[in-house]
Formats: sequence, C-alpha cells, structure tokens
Amino acid sequence: MMTFDERYSLYRTEIENSFSRFLPEEKDNILVDSMRYSLLAGGKRIRPILTLAWCELCGGVLKTALPAAAAVEMIHTYSLIHDDLPCMDNDTLRRGRPTNHVVYGEYVALLAGSGLYDKALETVLDFGKEYGLSDEGILQSVKILCSASGLNGILTGQVLDMKNSDRAVDRSYLEKVNDLKTASMLSASCVLGCIAAGADPKLCADADAYGRAVGQAFQIRDDILDVISTSEALGKTPGKDSDENKTTFVDLLGMEGAQKEVEALTERALSLLQNFPNPAFLRELTLRMCGRET
Amino acid sequence: MMTFDERYSLYRTEIENSFSRFLPEEKDNILVDSMRYSLLAGGKRIRPILTLAWCELCGGVLKTALPAAAAVEMIHTYSLIHDDLPCMDNDTLRRGRPTNHVVYGEYVALLAGSGLYDKALETVLDFGKEYGLSDEGILQSVKILCSASGLNGILTGQVLDMKNSDRAVDRSYLEKVNDLKTASMLSASCVLGCIAAGADPKLCADADAYGRAVGQAFQIRDDILDVISTSEALGKTPGKDSDENKTTFVDLLGMEGAQKEVEALTERALSLLQNFPNPAFLRELTLRMCGRET
Repeated sequence: MMTFDERYSLYRTEIENSFSRFLPEEKDNILVDSMRYSLLAGGKRIRPILTLAWCELCGGVLKTALPAAAAVEMIHTYSLIHDDLPCMDNDTLRRGRPTNHVVYGEYVALLAGSGLYDKALETVLDFGKEYGLSDEGILQSVKILCSASGLNGILTGQVLDMKNSDRAVDRSYLEKVNDLKTASMLSASCVLGCIAAGADPKLCADADAYGRAVGQAFQIRDDILDVISTSEALGKTPGKDSDENKTTFVDLLGMEGAQKEVEALTERALSLLQNFPNPAFLRELTLRMCGRET
Repeated sequence: MMTFDERYSLYRTEIENSFSRFLPEEKDNILVDSMRYSLLAGGKRIRPILTLAWCELCGGVLKTALPAAAAVEMIHTYSLIHDDLPCMDNDTLRRGRPTNHVVYGEYVALLAGSGLYDKALETVLDFGKEYGLSDEGILQSVKILCSASGLNGILTGQVLDMKNSDRAVDRSYLEKVNDLKTASMLSASCVLGCIAAGADPKLCADADAYGRAVGQAFQIRDDILDVISTSEALGKTPGKDSDENKTTFVDLLGMEGAQKEVEALTERALSLLQNFPNPAFLRELTLRMCGRET
C-alpha cells in the first residue's frame, strides 16, 4: 500500500516522463522550445493527477489515462501563457520563473500557447489508441477537452475575468467566472479519467460534480492566498487582484466567509467520493487542494 | 448545368448560412460578437469552397462536407485575427474593415481567435453525425484540422514568417513558410471534402498534392499582388512585405520569374484534376485562384 506522497510522486513522474514522448525536444525550433519551457516549468500537476486518480478510482489502468492527463496539463499551460500576456494580466513571474513572453517574446508566446492547445488534442488523437483508448473514448475525450477550453469553458471565463476589473460584480458573477475559467477544466480532468477507465455515465457525472466543487473551492482559496501570501510562497506576483481592482470572494464574503465557503465546497466534493471502494488518495488530495492540511 | 458563378455562389451561400447555425449570435456576449465580426466579414471563402467542391468531385453529398467546410473557414479566420495582432503583423485593415483588435481590443481579439479554433473543432465534433459523417470520418477530420493548424502547419509557418523579417532567406525557406502557413490548410480543405465523400486514400493523396500546389501558387501570387496592388483592390494594407523587410518570391525570382513559378504550379494542380469525371468547376477555380483570368 503506497502512502499519499508516494502515489502523488508516482503520478507526477508518469506525467512528466510522458511529455518527453508527447512533446519531444526539436533542434532549432523556438516554438517547441517555448512550449516546453512552460510545460516543464513544474507546478503541482493537479489536473493530470486528477485524471490518473479518477481513472484508477473507477478501476481503470493508469496508462490508458496518460494521453488525456498530458493533454489537460498542456491546455492548462496554454491558458496560463495567454493569461500572462501583456494584453491580458501582463504578468512577468510564473512558478518562480519569468513568464513565457518575457523569455521568448510576445509573438512566440502567443503561438506557443496555441501550439500547446493543438498538441493537447493531437496527443489524444495520435497516441490514444496505442495507450488503450477506444475510438469512441478518443472522440469523447476530444469533445470534453474542446468543450472545457472553449465558449463553455476557459475562454469565456477569461473574458468575464478581464471584465471584472474596475466594476462592481456580485457573487453569482464570480461563481460563473470560477466555474468557466477553473472548474470546467478541473472537472474535465476528472471525467477524462473516468472515460479512460470505460466508466459509465453515472460515475462521469459524479466526477463532473466533484470537479466543479473542487474548482470553486480551489479558486476561492486562490483569492485568499492572493491576500495573505508572499511572492516566494506563491511563485507568482501576489496582490495582483487588488492592484487590478478585481473583486474577489474575500471582498464579497470577508476572509472568514470565504474560508467557510471553501469548507462547504470541500465537504460536497468529499461526499461524492464516498461510494467508491478506494477513495483514500483522492480524499487526501481534495483536502490538500482545498487548503486543509492533514 | 450551373455556370461557374452560379455554383460558386451556391457554395458560398451554403457556407455563410451554416455560420448562423454553427456560431449563432448570443445576447451580451462580446466574445461571440468578435468571433462573428471576423467570420462574417466576407472574403472569398476559398477554403470552404474547396471542401465542398472536392466532396462533390469525389461523388459525395455537399451537406456532409458543410461542418468541415465551416471549420476550415473558422480556422483561417482565427489565423488572420492572430496574424493581425500588434505583436504579430500589427495590421489595422483586413477585408476593407478595421481588424478585430482595433474594434474589440487586444485581449478579446486574442480570445476570439482561440475561440474560433475551438468552435471549428466543435462544429465537426458536434454536428458531424447529423450532417452524415461517420464516427471515423469525424475522427479523421479532426485529426486533419489539428495537424494543419499546429506544429506541422500554420503555427510553425507563422513563426518562420515572423523570423523572415530583417534577415536574408532563400527559396527553400520561403517555400517552407508558404507550405506550412498557407498550403497545409488549403490542402486540408480539399482532403476534408474527400473524407466527407468517403473517398479512398488515393483520392485523398491527389487532393493533398493539389492543395499543396495551389497553396504555393496562391501565396506567390499574393507576393506579386502585394507589390502591384492598391489598398482598395487588396482590401488590406499593401506594401507590407517591403515595409517589414520581408523577403518575397518577387525579390528572389523577379516579377517574371515569380509569375512563371505560379504558372508551373497551376499546371501541376490542374493535372491532378484530369482523372476526375467532372472537374470543370475546380479547373476554373484553380485558374482564378492562381490569377489567370479566363
């Protein structure tokens, strides 16, 4: 029986090793260099770990979920690169390193983001079969990835988030931003694991609901951290939200209210794991993601 | 028997009507507004017309090719929006109208481009079956679209094109830029029509070779037009290439040499149509795309 840390580390190693196969280095290719710069910059790898963990939770084989796991991390990285661009959040620091456009210039960063999105889909399309996904599983997976990335997901979330600056927004607006910008891809990550395991629609629906709850909790916790953290601990520029006059959950509910909201969402997420035979890893992961150290 | 113009106009109407289904207007949605602004800006619709024409050339039913046809035009529009951004070509005029970022601002234009790429894939994924594509046809189509858009297509073409400025490049470099940036998507457009018709791999290979030749010819002709045209006729800012110190085929081969190159490529493209029963429309389209008025 592996400990939580051992299993986390195993998942992480599988994911990071997969990148050298799915997005190998290429000589004299600045586009691939810049894609790899951001993809290999570390981070907690939460989304792909959710994919692998949900696959195993549903009785699937880890390997089957690897292409989709790599894909969700590529899409997450794509959204960060574009988020950091001067015309978006204009951030210069990410995961403790200069952001992509600071290193490679703006147009390469723009294309590297798009390239990672493309490569995410191609990873599932080109490697899915070899890793054990059925054609139907590949088609379903690509649909889920596109849907979470597009107008019903990240892109609309980014627009609403940008429009948040310098105007009053209410709680339902913030929940919508969090759902589209963060929870949609977290829940897609979980559902993709179920698909890789060949799980039935009921389990996929549980995974979706779990991801939505965790996504909201995770994002509210981000608002909290943005207020209390230092740059060093956060690995990115703190206090950005107030600098940009963005309304956060802390503004609307106060620090204590926001913390309570995180608790309630965490409980909801945990309750969705109850019916599975071996939920220990995901229980612990949920608690850590939502900031309850154990 | 329809004339060329009647058939062109029929195809064009089918494509433009399909956009109101595949990307309908949405109230208070600036992202959808900006996507539609560029998608509905007109243009010659050459790529989707190639898709419909190749589908019919291979004996398929036009309707089956409509989702893929709409998709190639969405992807083309996405590449134009991103190409026009300040960090890329910094263009303010496109098809006789202000470019997307001039109207909607830079971050919305960035997201609108990405949104059109996403919507292109979702159009094939979500509507393919209803329009008569098999699951295998959908999977093949999405693969072709991703491949032509990514590292083996537009994105790398855009990087190489940007690196063209202010340095000496040779003929094979320019051919590579044209192939990746333009010909890959033109050839994908043709192949997607074959896929929609359920054509065998030999015909798909002909369509691919046809698209590559036409793509080169088309792009060299664009270099020629950039030198000789006025803004009004071109619908975009002329003389951009020399302003940016970009090397063109006209620089390398002279005006006459470039023109001869276009002729040779046109002949190659036409020869690939010879074995089909009803190539008249595509023959004429080829001649017009390559600038030989008939």
